[in-house]
Amino acid sequence: MIAIDWGTTSLRAFRIDADGNIIGTRRSTQGVLAAAGNFESVLRVEIDGWDDALIVMSGMIGSRQGWREVAYVECPAGLDEIAAAMVPLAPPSLPGRQIWLVPGLSVRDERGANDVMRGEETQICGLVDALGTRRHRVCLPGTHSKHAEIRNGRVERFHTAMTGELFDVLCKHSILGRLMDTNMPHRSAAFLRGVDDAREPRDLLNQLFAVRTLGLFGTLQADELPSYLSGLLIGHELNDLPADTGELHLVAAERLLELYTEALARRGVRAVNHAELAAARGLRALAVRRGLT
Amino acid sequence: MIAIDWGTTSLRAFRIDADGNIIGTRRSTQGVLAAAGNFESVLRVEIDGWDDALIVMSGMIGSRQGWREVAYVECPAGLDEIAAAMVPLAPPSLPGRQIWLVPGLSVRDERGANDVMRGEETQICGLVDALGTRRHRVCLPGTHSKHAEIRNGRVERFHTAMTGELFDVLCKHSILGRLMDTNMPHRSAAFLRGVDDAREPRDLLNQLFAVRTLGLFGTLQADELPSYLSGLLIGHELNDLPADTGELHLVAAERLLELYTEALARRGVRAVNHAELAAARGLRALAVRRGLT
Repeated sequence: MIAIDWGTTSLRAFRIDADGNIIGTRRSTQGVLAAAGNFESVLRVEIDGWDDALIVMSGMIGSRQGWREVAYVECPAGLDEIAAAMVPLAPPSLPGRQIWLVPGLSVRDERGANDVMRGEETQICGLVDALGTRRHRVCLPGTHSKHAEIRNGRVERFHTAMTGELFDVLCKHSILGRLMDTNMPHRSAAFLRGVDDAREPRDLLNQLFAVRTLGLFGTLQADELPSYLSGLLIGHELNDLPADTGELHLVAAERLLELYTEALARRGVRAVNHAELAAARGLRALAVRRGLT
Repeated sequence: MIAIDWGTTSLRAFRIDADGNIIGTRRSTQGVLAAAGNFESVLRVEIDGWDDALIVMSGMIGSRQGWREVAYVECPAGLDEIAAAMVPLAPPSLPGRQIWLVPGLSVRDERGANDVMRGEETQICGLVDALGTRRHRVCLPGTHSKHAEIRNGRVERFHTAMTGELFDVLCKHSILGRLMDTNMPHRSAAFLRGVDDAREPRDLLNQLFAVRTLGLFGTLQADELPSYLSGLLIGHELNDLPADTGELHLVAAERLLELYTEALARRGVRAVNHAELAAARGLRALAVRRGLT
């Protein structure tokens, strides 16, 4: 089968054999934004030479801006609920292919406020078999970091933090960026100072301006400021973890795994690292559960 | 005399007679960024036709990026300390003029972190005579909102919140802006919902993403989202006010005065509104204290 994680800014395709082994991977920048509605032709190019009949796709490709909107499945939800809500597509130019879209998840808190994910639920599906039945916390850091509580293989609730996006817009478009050298390597001391400062009883709006004065007064050097800001924001994200959190499962690419592992250790939380291949494993698990393979 | 509030993005000039009456005002977009080093020629144009010998200037014109860097005066500081640290300029193309730059203020907290202001100290100087000797809190909302504690006419301490800048970069450059109609009039109910939500024990990074889901699920309409975001950020800024704050002096232009007055009322704090002319009054008070007029 072919498994595709098709997000806003990128697309990752995996070819998986009958035993569940990944036998081919492709990566492209033809995310939902770049594909701009030409999903059928982009897909034909991306899977060129892979003749498997079954194609299962997750991520923003199933959103209002994607190929076809697939309704969110409400939490608690696991493999059963997600697989049952998958939606088939039959594009005319791809005859002989069975194409399926995976739904995202939504959750509603006590106050009636909603949160959503699209794509991350599939990565979590790739993880749950390995986790077993007790309660776990999973974090998928990134542009919009997701924190999920898993029990008995189902996502009970989750919330999102706009950590990565806020870091990007501040570096690129705010006064903070003008002081920074954002191409510098990671500076551990400055990063951890940010993680620590995030616990102070001052509002983030004040702490963001303080990034500027730390630079202005030479307390931190220009090449340390991005690491400090990154630590400050990740620290704020981690403030929402319950105080008794002992362990957190991380699914991310290497650079973010390292940053979050370092920040979590500072807070006394053990990080359990999982590679990004969780998406491919999750798409296969969903196809099996749906009875497609 | 001529009083000039010369900030990063704009310049406001006031002509003041011997009795302290403002007899002329000018406003231009030739802020420190736009003037780009040509401060002498910009000044000549801006004061054209005003032949007063004395010119006193405050704001970013006295910063590292300005005409000449004037060292910050450390808090506590009032008219005496600020006037004593004013610095004269003698540009060759403006013979017969006495030009002075007003310093900004800095403050250092218990942990050794600094905060700074440039320009706002002058607006506070324009206010202190009217305030009398007891303790007051003053807020100058804006791109970088300043909150100062005044006692006996001196700024004892202050802190900055990056409220206005964060609102701007999120509207212009983040995923939130894509959902928003930012040209809509103020929506009071959505704004106050944001002010209230800012008190919840959830981190701002999570609440920012929630702005998106409030729009996605139709809880708020696209034309309500900017007001909600504005309320959320102003609410966060106000979280740093001590719980016993009964009254806050506001110095701002009309639109921000209205927003902050509404948010403060929601928090049970009485706003005392002061017009923006405080800058002109402050510059005159500093010139008098320095013995220049």
